[in-house]
Amino acid sequence: MSKPRVGIINVTGYAGVELARLLTGHPDITLTSVTGRSAAGQALGEVFPHLAGAGLDITAEMGEVDFAFAALPHKESAARVSQLIDGGIKVVDISADYRLHDAALYPEWYGFDHPHPNLLKRAVYGLPERYREEIRGASLVANPGCYPTGAILALAPALENGLIEPEIIIDSKSGVSGAGRTLSLKTHYPEANEDVTAYALDGHRHLPEITQELARLRPEAALKVSFVPHLIPMTRGILTTAYAPLRPGGIAPDARGAMELIELYRQFYDGEPFVRVTAQPPHTSHTRGSNHCLIHPTLDLRTGRLIVVSAIDNLVKGAAGQAIQNMNLMLGLPETTGLDAPATYP
Amino acid sequence: MSKPRVGIINVTGYAGVELARLLTGHPDITLTSVTGRSAAGQALGEVFPHLAGAGLDITAEMGEVDFAFAALPHKESAARVSQLIDGGIKVVDISADYRLHDAALYPEWYGFDHPHPNLLKRAVYGLPERYREEIRGASLVANPGCYPTGAILALAPALENGLIEPEIIIDSKSGVSGAGRTLSLKTHYPEANEDVTAYALDGHRHLPEITQELARLRPEAALKVSFVPHLIPMTRGILTTAYAPLRPGGIAPDARGAMELIELYRQFYDGEPFVRVTAQPPHTSHTRGSNHCLIHPTLDLRTGRLIVVSAIDNLVKGAAGQAIQNMNLMLGLPETTGLDAPATYP
Amino acid sequence: MSKPRVGIINVTGYAGVELARLLTGHPDITLTSVTGRSAAGQALGEVFPHLAGAGLDITAEMGEVDFAFAALPHKESAARVSQLIDGGIKVVDISADYRLHDAALYPEWYGFDHPHPNLLKRAVYGLPERYREEIRGASLVANPGCYPTGAILALAPALENGLIEPEIIIDSKSGVSGAGRTLSLKTHYPEANEDVTAYALDGHRHLPEITQELARLRPEAALKVSFVPHLIPMTRGILTTAYAPLRPGGIAPDARGAMELIELYRQFYDGEPFVRVTAQPPHTSHTRGSNHCLIHPTLDLRTGRLIVVSAIDNLVKGAAGQAIQNMNLMLGLPETTGLDAPATYP
Amino acid sequence: MSKPRVGIINVTGYAGVELARLLTGHPDITLTSVTGRSAAGQALGEVFPHLAGAGLDITAEMGEVDFAFAALPHKESAARVSQLIDGGIKVVDISADYRLHDAALYPEWYGFDHPHPNLLKRAVYGLPERYREEIRGASLVANPGCYPTGAILALAPALENGLIEPEIIIDSKSGVSGAGRTLSLKTHYPEANEDVTAYALDGHRHLPEITQELARLRPEAALKVSFVPHLIPMTRGILTTAYAPLRPGGIAPDARGAMELIELYRQFYDGEPFVRVTAQPPHTSHTRGSNHCLIHPTLDLRTGRLIVVSAIDNLVKGAAGQAIQNMNLMLGLPETTGLDAPATYP
Repeated sequence: MSKPRVGIINVTGYAGVELARLLTGHPDITLTSVTGRSAAGQALGEVFPHLAGAGLDITAEMGEVDFAFAALPHKESAARVSQLIDGGIKVVDISADYRLHDAALYPEWYGFDHPHPNLLKRAVYGLPERYREEIRGASLVANPGCYPTGAILALAPALENGLIEPEIIIDSKSGVSGAGRTLSLKTHYPEANEDVTAYALDGHRHLPEITQELARLRPEAALKVSFVPHLIPMTRGILTTAYAPLRPGGIAPDARGAMELIELYRQFYDGEPFVRVTAQPPHTSHTRGSNHCLIHPTLDLRTGRLIVVSAIDNLVKGAAGQAIQNMNLMLGLPETTGLDAPATYP
Repeated sequence: MSKPRVGIINVTGYAGVELARLLTGHPDITLTSVTGRSAAGQALGEVFPHLAGAGLDITAEMGEVDFAFAALPHKESAARVSQLIDGGIKVVDISADYRLHDAALYPEWYGFDHPHPNLLKRAVYGLPERYREEIRGASLVANPGCYPTGAILALAPALENGLIEPEIIIDSKSGVSGAGRTLSLKTHYPEANEDVTAYALDGHRHLPEITQELARLRPEAALKVSFVPHLIPMTRGILTTAYAPLRPGGIAPDARGAMELIELYRQFYDGEPFVRVTAQPPHTSHTRGSNHCLIHPTLDLRTGRLIVVSAIDNLVKGAAGQAIQNMNLMLGLPETTGLDAPATYP
Repeated sequence: MSKPRVGIINVTGYAGVELARLLTGHPDITLTSVTGRSAAGQALGEVFPHLAGAGLDITAEMGEVDFAFAALPHKESAARVSQLIDGGIKVVDISADYRLHDAALYPEWYGFDHPHPNLLKRAVYGLPERYREEIRGASLVANPGCYPTGAILALAPALENGLIEPEIIIDSKSGVSGAGRTLSLKTHYPEANEDVTAYALDGHRHLPEITQELARLRPEAALKVSFVPHLIPMTRGILTTAYAPLRPGGIAPDARGAMELIELYRQFYDGEPFVRVTAQPPHTSHTRGSNHCLIHPTLDLRTGRLIVVSAIDNLVKGAAGQAIQNMNLMLGLPETTGLDAPATYP
Repeated sequence: MSKPRVGIINVTGYAGVELARLLTGHPDITLTSVTGRSAAGQALGEVFPHLAGAGLDITAEMGEVDFAFAALPHKESAARVSQLIDGGIKVVDISADYRLHDAALYPEWYGFDHPHPNLLKRAVYGLPERYREEIRGASLVANPGCYPTGAILALAPALENGLIEPEIIIDSKSGVSGAGRTLSLKTHYPEANEDVTAYALDGHRHLPEITQELARLRPEAALKVSFVPHLIPMTRGILTTAYAPLRPGGIAPDARGAMELIELYRQFYDGEPFVRVTAQPPHTSHTRGSNHCLIHPTLDLRTGRLIVVSAIDNLVKGAAGQAIQNMNLMLGLPETTGLDAPATYP
């Protein structure tokens, strides 16, 4: 039986090119089509020399495929994905266009009315650690945002187990590739190098996504989530530090409680191929290029707060790697296929 | 009248060499003596080529001076500073040895019994924005730590004005020079580059210092402060993001409240030569090499929280620059003397 | 007597903003006017927060000044500078438009016919170590390019003393700020970070400038100069490594010759305030933010070649600092005024 | 048939841990033993969290294996490798101890008398592009140094085809991981960051290795090779820029000659799985984590010189990847096994 043919729409952004990198090593599918606009007509290896071995050309239109990744900017993606689904092609959408279940949030956060609210209802949020079974049966998976992936995985065990009050602070530090391949002054090398800054203090677009998923973990709680992203001078990686007060009567703010906490996190993620609960605070460098999420939960004994630190590669578990993990599930392949390379440290 | 003669004890650490850089351009004092141990006998310009113009040699013992900066490691500093004070020399101590008013904290946080508790009582905490008058009259000033400087300045207006509940989260991101010039694996270039990590989750030594000073701003409140420092891949700079819930009945969590907040911060720091309240989140690169602290307070309207972001150069306002600011006050010089160069951006 | 009023045309590029940084600390002139196009109408401190203290606004047109720095792109500068000179204003031109004495080189290297060949003849090449007296009397000084500054200073003593054959290789490594503040893919952070590449292998625009000046040092030699610039992941600094065979009969390729060489370089630059001949290979970090050029000449004893390594800050000695050094000379001020701050290391 | 068992001696250096990373993904061998000294007794994943999935412990002594990589420091390696060979185990030695055919060079360049000159004679220099057949039959392969790999591959086609005079300049720029995992001031983050410097100007240890191999390509020529390495602020990668005059009568210094040159390089490396001759100057970022060497040869038409730029990842093609390529050949496996992942860009 021949392998499924897979296409990438808009291969020229960082998520797209990372999909291509990972898919060229995937043993059970064949990457047959990669599209781009300004780069259409060029060999993939001309634009991205590290992919010269793939022997693919960038085209304006996608060829015939069995499965597609849409790596378009938000708003553009919604319509294109709908066409693909109508054509019977399973899709993982890297954009935000099918992540928020409530269509009413799109005008507020993304500035457009969602053109396909019915399809939106059918889309599955592509976090396998939460929705593995739904993903297996889905035609359309909305791949989570990079910040939400690190934040939700960090807080899920604590929320689901009712360990914390719903007063949550999420402070994230991202490498610059998270801002994409489109030029901007803030990502100009001499501006971003040797600098750190907070941004989107009035509300980052990943906030409603984080809130939606945290709320599903603890529907009865009135969540108050503050999320502040920071840009730091490195290319890949997101470190998320999350804070919340312990609920009285749950885990005790002492050394024994801290051990119970780690154990509870380990059980929660037991068997998960890409989540590791670590005894030490994680480094993003230990996830570089890999699909792993490293999570270290601990207690601030002086204040009775939970502190959880998670590390991911924003382009892999935060984008392309998780997308392939979703594809594997949707195609009935072993979930880790093509994703087992360790991180490229140092 | 001749200029005061100034010495630096232990010029070979990053705080020491930064003191030397700034003092060589100070018009109203003369840097006459710099000491070091392993480097004793070498010209300053041999060890630090950018200071070749100073024409100084590193000696094992300090020569006769009128004023001294002690840039020794903690525990070593306590005794040396006491000798200097006994000898009638005014001192700014860069170490932590005279920062904590409660001598009982030293065994817990620094692992030694304080040898000079009486002198500790006389030491003034060297944050001019808080203790300007006391510093003017002091013989011994304990120069604040780098993290505390950014954190206290960020929160002081809100605390003193009773705007916030005492539930405080301080999430700081520091460049690697904050870890000093002593070699360690975590500051080895291939380990620290392209990486971010949280550390000291069980309690950083700057926490009791931060707590002491925040408590003095709001003595009646039972503060619960979590402080998590992070190491990010740049040389200089600390960005601090602080979070706390607004107190009911104070500033309202709306757009008007946000404007009142900025105005209140501006008034609080009105006339301060080195603090600027900014309308946008600050960049550490805009403080590089300068003694400025940039502060941006804002409100998270969705959760009713205060969020304040501050930026400093950890080696200047966080160490050597603030030390010179203190010296200026102690010597009766204009406070900004030798400290007026803008940041070296980009 | 009032201080000369100084203006910067196009303050919004990196050379322009660095001029502003250095001029705000210059004691003997007053920076009164800074122009920009897209930023006109904004406060200087709004666009560049580190310069908020200057209290200047960016204007579309320059106000009345006694002296001007033109920091325009090449081709645009030629006409604007000519107007200023006609108006009796002394000018240092940061662009390349008045650097090449031979007007015929402009179409070939810069793609335009020089509009003011007569003025070109009157312009002095602004390398004070070579043309100090001419600069003192000049109305128009063409500020050298960043690469030429490091290369010419590295080779001048060897060439003028006839030590080397004219077979010269110049391999330069530049920080990214040398590519300017205009956005481009190659200076996009994730592209430039963790990368090094050679560029302009078919001839960089600084080559004719280097060749012109090296030829003036050794007019009788038929120079064969290869110049290859490289982009490396840092913001500031150029390290230049220059290679040339020793001339037979000159300095001997042995240990004694190496010592003679250093001595000869020291004598050549004796009294120069901004050039230091070093006993060890220089680091660009020891020039960061300062106007110094560090030069280390040595011999490759195995091959009989001269190897010289020079380090500068491309934005200071390679642009704004040297421009101010030239201004000081043109205004009859002490040459080092406003330029004596040591490098910001680390 | 069971897979060969493979061991790594001294897994805790950067070459060792990179071997472990690549070998864990190798389908045709089993990594069964990794040794270390100070880390003995720890799990591999404790010291290197990205390798937690390997499930290996670091031991003081190597277990029973069929093949070994020795990643010891030079001088220590010579004896250990000899024991292994005596025990019938095939070895790739990452150190320099078996690279130089002339035992007399060891005292001069490495400060020790070679203890096993007979074994030295049997060792094959492990550059597959040059010695593929000898490697297939070898018991001991001396893995090339990082700088030599990039330099020799850049110059081999030109030298073997007699295109250039033997007057060669090799200017290399290396990331900091090339200096190893042992702490030193020059690799301390705040020292190495935002800095570039030349080092080993009096002769780097890789020079005799480069010279040995270039001489074998052109035995009749009296080579004069200058080699200057530079340290630049990135973790991985070496860019080498090599210069040599064209031989009269060979390739002409014109546009047609430049095309012939590229064609000649392409033919020389035709069929080589890990060498790509590129039409544009290569970026080290396009080799990050991969075993590829990218080479761009061109002509300086103005001076009649060949300029070749090569890019490798110093830890892969410059160390661990090439070592595995050699192992594949020695074990009769397809040469690219376990080495086909594209580079991790960006």
